[in-house]
Amino acid sequence: MWSLEEIAQHVNGEVIGDDTWQVEGVATLKTAEKRHISFLANSKYTKYLSSTKAGAVIISKKMLSAIAGNAIVVDDPYIAYAMVAGLLNPEPDSEAMTALTAVISPKSKIAANANIGHHVVIGDNVFIGPNAVIGAGTVIEQGVSIGKNARISPNVTICSHVKIGDNIIIHPGVVIGADGFGIANNKGKWIKVPQLGSVEIGDDVEIGANTTIDCGALENTIIGNGVKLDNQIQIAHNDIIGDNTVIAGCVGIAGSTEIGQNCIIGGGVGISGHLNIADGVMITGMTMVTKSIKEPGSYSSGIPADTTSQWHKNVVRYRQLGKLSERVKKLERGN
Amino acid sequence: MWSLEEIAQHVNGEVIGDDTWQVEGVATLKTAEKRHISFLANSKYTKYLSSTKAGAVIISKKMLSAIAGNAIVVDDPYIAYAMVAGLLNPEPDSEAMTALTAVISPKSKIAANANIGHHVVIGDNVFIGPNAVIGAGTVIEQGVSIGKNARISPNVTICSHVKIGDNIIIHPGVVIGADGFGIANNKGKWIKVPQLGSVEIGDDVEIGANTTIDCGALENTIIGNGVKLDNQIQIAHNDIIGDNTVIAGCVGIAGSTEIGQNCIIGGGVGISGHLNIADGVMITGMTMVTKSIKEPGSYSSGIPADTTSQWHKNVVRYRQLGKLSERVKKLERGN
Amino acid sequence: MWSLEEIAQHVNGEVIGDDTWQVEGVATLKTAEKRHISFLANSKYTKYLSSTKAGAVIISKKMLSAIAGNAIVVDDPYIAYAMVAGLLNPEPDSEAMTALTAVISPKSKIAANANIGHHVVIGDNVFIGPNAVIGAGTVIEQGVSIGKNARISPNVTICSHVKIGDNIIIHPGVVIGADGFGIANNKGKWIKVPQLGSVEIGDDVEIGANTTIDCGALENTIIGNGVKLDNQIQIAHNDIIGDNTVIAGCVGIAGSTEIGQNCIIGGGVGISGHLNIADGVMITGMTMVTKSIKEPGSYSSGIPADTTSQWHKNVVRYRQLGKLSERVKKLERGN
Repeated sequence: MWSLEEIAQHVNGEVIGDDTWQVEGVATLKTAEKRHISFLANSKYTKYLSSTKAGAVIISKKMLSAIAGNAIVVDDPYIAYAMVAGLLNPEPDSEAMTALTAVISPKSKIAANANIGHHVVIGDNVFIGPNAVIGAGTVIEQGVSIGKNARISPNVTICSHVKIGDNIIIHPGVVIGADGFGIANNKGKWIKVPQLGSVEIGDDVEIGANTTIDCGALENTIIGNGVKLDNQIQIAHNDIIGDNTVIAGCVGIAGSTEIGQNCIIGGGVGISGHLNIADGVMITGMTMVTKSIKEPGSYSSGIPADTTSQWHKNVVRYRQLGKLSERVKKLERGN
Repeated sequence: MWSLEEIAQHVNGEVIGDDTWQVEGVATLKTAEKRHISFLANSKYTKYLSSTKAGAVIISKKMLSAIAGNAIVVDDPYIAYAMVAGLLNPEPDSEAMTALTAVISPKSKIAANANIGHHVVIGDNVFIGPNAVIGAGTVIEQGVSIGKNARISPNVTICSHVKIGDNIIIHPGVVIGADGFGIANNKGKWIKVPQLGSVEIGDDVEIGANTTIDCGALENTIIGNGVKLDNQIQIAHNDIIGDNTVIAGCVGIAGSTEIGQNCIIGGGVGISGHLNIADGVMITGMTMVTKSIKEPGSYSSGIPADTTSQWHKNVVRYRQLGKLSERVKKLERGN
Repeated sequence: MWSLEEIAQHVNGEVIGDDTWQVEGVATLKTAEKRHISFLANSKYTKYLSSTKAGAVIISKKMLSAIAGNAIVVDDPYIAYAMVAGLLNPEPDSEAMTALTAVISPKSKIAANANIGHHVVIGDNVFIGPNAVIGAGTVIEQGVSIGKNARISPNVTICSHVKIGDNIIIHPGVVIGADGFGIANNKGKWIKVPQLGSVEIGDDVEIGANTTIDCGALENTIIGNGVKLDNQIQIAHNDIIGDNTVIAGCVGIAGSTEIGQNCIIGGGVGISGHLNIADGVMITGMTMVTKSIKEPGSYSSGIPADTTSQWHKNVVRYRQLGKLSERVKKLERGN
């Protein structure tokens, strides 16, 4: 239980109302009860303000007049909500423990206070820093190095020689450091190009479920500090993702592409290989990127849904654009 | 071995020919032998009717004249085929068994007749109903509840507190209840928004290989009764999928979107976050959905393949649409 | 250490300079040191030729004048690089070993020199040929057959009765032979169509991380010899992929589609079900294929990224194509 005064201090906000009010958890405006604190971060939900049962609401100054009860006024209610949710729901301390069924090479150095789940397999010459949690069934191959405070979920695979910084969060099913897709056509038969590089991942990175990050062909694939990756993303060999770039689900990035810092890439985007994307680029969902982007700004492609009958008509017209252009040219020539 | 009479009874059909004929299995018209029953459900395959060696064919009334041998006449041959295939190939009874290598918390309640595979890990306070089969290497975290008749494949991960109804089928590599992609930008640095909700899944749901369903941020992500999900689908935090909706492979749905009941969503579709899709909506493959859909019906987008040289020309013309429109305007003004 | 003479012999090339020069490894022009051999396969990197510290460079005849040091002249430097990388970095011999924690049915036949990792589970009546390496946590269900020289990574799932040829490489998280997405709508309720086929995979196939290949409904899904699949590809039931076809990441192919031999399919492509794609077809990234392709050649669709403001304008104009066409028709009619 935390008082509104304590919470306000944590988020650098100001209490309006009873600053001794005790809060137990966070909830949405619609579902909150008296023991909850709620928040208004998206104007779409303003309609729930008048009827919410929340004991207090985190809100911006300009919306303050819309509520009657306790409030904490902040500059950015979404940030404040994120911070309060963390305050009220701390990660449970993990117990120092190694499951009896885990198999750990005696040539590896695992911090004494790590929590190693059942059936984990850790190969030779692995280094894992303090406070690590490694979920059941996860496999970490030889030569991998992982910094402090790692939270690695079950059924993850980290291939040989991957280097990972501090505070990594890896969700289930992730594969890091598998061979890149390197093939060469030798008189009609594909031969494998050995994938000799690895993957380097910085600090404060989060990687979503079933995402894959391939090792490099000769040099390393690189994921910068503070990068956040959603689920089912494919990052190919020798890609470089700049610091603090965030990528939503189902994005595929072909090999040897370099993405700048502080980029925001929407879901389902596809990016060709050997491109450079500048710092500060935003790309909206399902965009097809086939050329380098040199300037910061927002980029898009794709045609949103119509009814299927309208879609059919538009596709036909699209394919007749050449003829339409000819007809206009003819009119311009005056006959 | 089943007689045509028994089979006809099972599918509510009528035998034409020898109703004592014994059937051993189901096969396609092209590959069937005398011991097989086959079916005609797609007119594309009518050409194989005359040469099939099948001992009997499931067929609609209007196609009956096209065959000489034994037949079972039904209203919908595809449904009847599905039912007969199930009748002739029943799921083998699973033996009540717990592999010695499985690790199950003594604080969990697992039905006595469950079949628990090797290296399965089940955390504290898990409930699993009768007749469950849990494949090798699957990890079920604390607080998960699963109804009766579950068929869960190997190498699945079900995260803490997920609730699942009866008759679930989960294929390998599926991840349910991993953290949603919640981040907030605090002066240039991304901070994690704790993901405190879970996932609720109804009865009669099937989930394809390597599909991921994230937990909710505050409330739960919800998958309705009778929902069928193909492989490699990404369902984000706080999505709601209505009863009996089916979704084909490689679909990505961003967070807080609500899909109605009885929808059919084609492969590779992308749907933005915070949308509402009405009941009875069909969306064709690879469509990009960026706005809510309020009426039932069929929706589409995307331009199908051309030759690469034609594609290049059309893209150029597409990008000159503004100029073309100007030229037409000029002609309309009469100069 | 290999001499340039030995290397040149291996790639059928000619040494220019000191043919006794000893080489230890392969590196890019930019990062190579004296002990490395490098290569120029992409004209984009010609700029690094003058400053490279590589002890030797693999190069084509026409670029030879651009370098001063040792060289090996070949017809195709990329192929030669792949071969030299393989020569200098041979796969380590795997030790014949079965981890104590692996669970292998006594009814299975595993070659005596196989290397079976920790927590591997192998069901009844499995056959695995000589020199296999099976990674930790991998599950191989009953009746599976795998030829010689298999390299299977950790956390892979191979479902019952899948047949695999020689020299397979399977990366982590791959699922082969899970149920296809077969459902039939029986008066508003979806019933499962039993998936009774399996998967057949030829020789010399490589399958990328988290790729899924479903079993067939009645007949088998088939992957030909020499097929190379990248990560996160979805291959549905009863697809047939012809020999030596290569498919890049994130491609989805719906059911019962047949792809010819020697095709090259770019990343993120979607292909509808029940189609035929001819031999020798190339499809560029993110293309949407909804009809069969009968002629070899290159095919494409999709509109590449613009700035978001330009994109908005173009989408509006696209949707007004019908009106624009009407306006042109009116002008043609002369009023």
